[in-house]
Amino acid sequence: MKDLSRNLTMLCDFYELTMSNGYFEKGMQDKIVYFDVFYRDNPDNGGFAVVAGLEQVVEYINNLRFDEDDIAFLRSKKCFSEAFLSYLSEFRFTGDIWAVPEGTVVFPNEPLMTVRARTVEAQFIETYVLMAINHQSLIATKAARITRAAKGRAVSEFGSRRAQGADAAILGARAAYIGGCGSTACTITDEAYGVPATGTMAHSWVQMFDSEYEAFKSYCEIYPNNATLLVDTYNVLESGIPNAIKAFNEVLKPRGITRCGIRIDSGDITYLTVKVRKMLDDAGWPECRIIISNSLDEYLIRELIRQGACVDAFGVGERLITAKSDPVFGGVYKLCAVEDEQGNIIPKIKISENVGKITTPHFKKVYRLRGRDTGKAEADLICVYDETVDDTKPIELFDPQHTWKRKILENYTATELLLPVFRNGKQVYRLPTLSEIRRHCEEEINGMWDEVRRFNNPHNYYVDLSQKLWDIKQQMLQARGVWKPAKNG
Amino acid sequence: MKDLSRNLTMLCDFYELTMSNGYFEKGMQDKIVYFDVFYRDNPDNGGFAVVAGLEQVVEYINNLRFDEDDIAFLRSKKCFSEAFLSYLSEFRFTGDIWAVPEGTVVFPNEPLMTVRARTVEAQFIETYVLMAINHQSLIATKAARITRAAKGRAVSEFGSRRAQGADAAILGARAAYIGGCGSTACTITDEAYGVPATGTMAHSWVQMFDSEYEAFKSYCEIYPNNATLLVDTYNVLESGIPNAIKAFNEVLKPRGITRCGIRIDSGDITYLTVKVRKMLDDAGWPECRIIISNSLDEYLIRELIRQGACVDAFGVGERLITAKSDPVFGGVYKLCAVEDEQGNIIPKIKISENVGKITTPHFKKVYRLRGRDTGKAEADLICVYDETVDDTKPIELFDPQHTWKRKILENYTATELLLPVFRNGKQVYRLPTLSEIRRHCEEEINGMWDEVRRFNNPHNYYVDLSQKLWDIKQQMLQARGVWKPAKNG
Repeated sequence: MKDLSRNLTMLCDFYELTMSNGYFEKGMQDKIVYFDVFYRDNPDNGGFAVVAGLEQVVEYINNLRFDEDDIAFLRSKKCFSEAFLSYLSEFRFTGDIWAVPEGTVVFPNEPLMTVRARTVEAQFIETYVLMAINHQSLIATKAARITRAAKGRAVSEFGSRRAQGADAAILGARAAYIGGCGSTACTITDEAYGVPATGTMAHSWVQMFDSEYEAFKSYCEIYPNNATLLVDTYNVLESGIPNAIKAFNEVLKPRGITRCGIRIDSGDITYLTVKVRKMLDDAGWPECRIIISNSLDEYLIRELIRQGACVDAFGVGERLITAKSDPVFGGVYKLCAVEDEQGNIIPKIKISENVGKITTPHFKKVYRLRGRDTGKAEADLICVYDETVDDTKPIELFDPQHTWKRKILENYTATELLLPVFRNGKQVYRLPTLSEIRRHCEEEINGMWDEVRRFNNPHNYYVDLSQKLWDIKQQMLQARGVWKPAKNG
Repeated sequence: MKDLSRNLTMLCDFYELTMSNGYFEKGMQDKIVYFDVFYRDNPDNGGFAVVAGLEQVVEYINNLRFDEDDIAFLRSKKCFSEAFLSYLSEFRFTGDIWAVPEGTVVFPNEPLMTVRARTVEAQFIETYVLMAINHQSLIATKAARITRAAKGRAVSEFGSRRAQGADAAILGARAAYIGGCGSTACTITDEAYGVPATGTMAHSWVQMFDSEYEAFKSYCEIYPNNATLLVDTYNVLESGIPNAIKAFNEVLKPRGITRCGIRIDSGDITYLTVKVRKMLDDAGWPECRIIISNSLDEYLIRELIRQGACVDAFGVGERLITAKSDPVFGGVYKLCAVEDEQGNIIPKIKISENVGKITTPHFKKVYRLRGRDTGKAEADLICVYDETVDDTKPIELFDPQHTWKRKILENYTATELLLPVFRNGKQVYRLPTLSEIRRHCEEEINGMWDEVRRFNNPHNYYVDLSQKLWDIKQQMLQARGVWKPAKNG
């Protein structure tokens, strides 16, 4: 596999460095702190997200070091002490990280990752960690929506040329594969990550020949086993399809090849594909696949299928690779606890006048509760780190906002979502292969009730707090004088 | 300067390779062809775009080569001939490229870049060239909108954590600087490209101390000359500002420091900043700057300023770094001419049932026509490569769609926009410094009439064709039988 890794230690918001220097100056650099990564809203008002990007975080953490040029550059900014710069030159990540595996279905306000480390280490990694998780979770989530809309038809990622930079193209194609795309147009993502790269021709191929027929015939001769012809350079029904059929008859038929394809990149897809299907079938090419690629997303694909478009596969470009309809995954990185000198864990909370922005304090674990018979996910339960759910006993869940909404769950399994990834700075997690991640994602999505998977107005999946965690949060809010706890809390 | 370059030769759509192999198999690899890069619509329905990304294209072209692993990978795909793979192992770009310099104001349907090269070379570079130009033009254009909305107040780029991958963060910050941002939070963009990186503190700094006051006082002690305090961790008016004033009085006042700042990242900005300004002025801190950073874009900034918000500087994150309101710059790469064996240039046209997608054929040059007295741009004129505009003589322009709309321009200057960048594969263009590009962009935007710069419903800037080019295009359309030419064409 091609190695595309770079040392991106310096890809940090400058304030990570001014704060780190400040912690160092105040002698706070060895204080142990806990940060959570979580997000607040599902993209596209969906029912869930697919988390991705952990492999790039692991690579980043393992590569984390400042070289001499970095130190010299930071010195030139004239705001860091020499003692701090010297400390940075030896800087490594020595803390612990727990994370939800890539490809897992996740929900707002639950930790996707928890970092326990010395202040400077935990603070410093914020920018890159968020960027990596936000980017790939955005694209994996979008790909999961688009491939579900396609109802089993193949979806290929086609967006490199409209991606927001090289990594957006390369890792966006990786994330799209996790979310369910079967292939990509991006060659380097095949070489580096094993996502199958495919592609045949652009309009320029057709224009480069004296006639469309000659262009098609030449292509079939060179690639008889993978002849997918782009038929909309001039006119799909009057020129493209007749010429394609002629080329198929001339070149493929004598060789006994029945599998081939045509691609349409413009025009009214429903109208054209119905006509094209009939033309191909009538001409004896029922196995010729019809591939569509023109500003597609989940909404358009769903509509095309509803209207009866005859499509075998979709190529999806800019609206997937940029998640155009909602191009920001809003993961945040918030302090949730600190340790005192005796190692006691002191929960921390971030208050906000906007109630939705109040954080859930403490070092936490997350359980996913699934029906033992159905296998379907029923709720996630966030607990304090030292709690354990015994899934041989019934459990009472309650809505953390409306605590009178209660439910007793029986006959369930409880699985922890956050797995140890780094322990004392050492990687303790085997990175799954990309195929494993993709399969895991598929299983995860299949493990959700249809109501949660609905595109419009999905069921609000339960992410509840344990009684102990809820009590701690309420006490902290009360101590801040923000509100009075509910009586039945 | 830190070198972040990688060999991204393999960042190509797979079809560039299948087509290239096809040209090679057909013996067409040395045929000379011309491709244009252009776009069709301005982002956000604006009046113009700012082109950027050329430096990355130059770096890409200079690094273009397949290594042994790449060749082995391509061989494993089992669709390329050994002769072609051998050819690729020696592959270099040996053609010519002309491009509009970075930071230039550009308009739909005019070439931003023209490539003249052998088929395989010209075809192969499509994906990366488009990706680089599309990405940075998108962000530079958005930054130009946002900084104009700020009406002279400083704008800093803050979006790395929400960027679509590392390059989106790094080069997005570069493009944002070209478009008018004065600084970035992204440290590595300072180290690699010299965009000033700035930053002070996050909420976690405040939470890490026993009290907000202690956090502020500590920060002022460490950074007395750059004390910008984040005042919304608990309550801006009741806690943040009183504590900030106390810390300024305690630490900065005795040292005679009058410059400092506060940042607000949540809440109703107009209401809060008016109150905060008064509190700071009343407390004797009139030079304390108020910095705002909460999901800002050009629309919100304009509205805040109209409402009388007291803001000195804006930090703009996710809505700039992803160009959230319109996150795709739709640059395309289209064949416009080929050379025959005698070296004659044969124009090519791409027909489409969608009239807006019909290309302008031929090897072209573009002139920008500016009023000699006003310095303002009046129109762009696209000509055939062998035409010359003599700006000592009046020129008649006409609308290429509505040819009866005519205008005679006098007392103007004509400047060619496309400059030679590569000649026979050798770079012949001195890359300007980033400061030069940023200054050029500012001059370019100042050189546009207000009507073109309007956010809503801007004046449609004229991009006209020369009579010669218009005639050639009409003849080609007529030959295809698409429509009859206008009588007065």
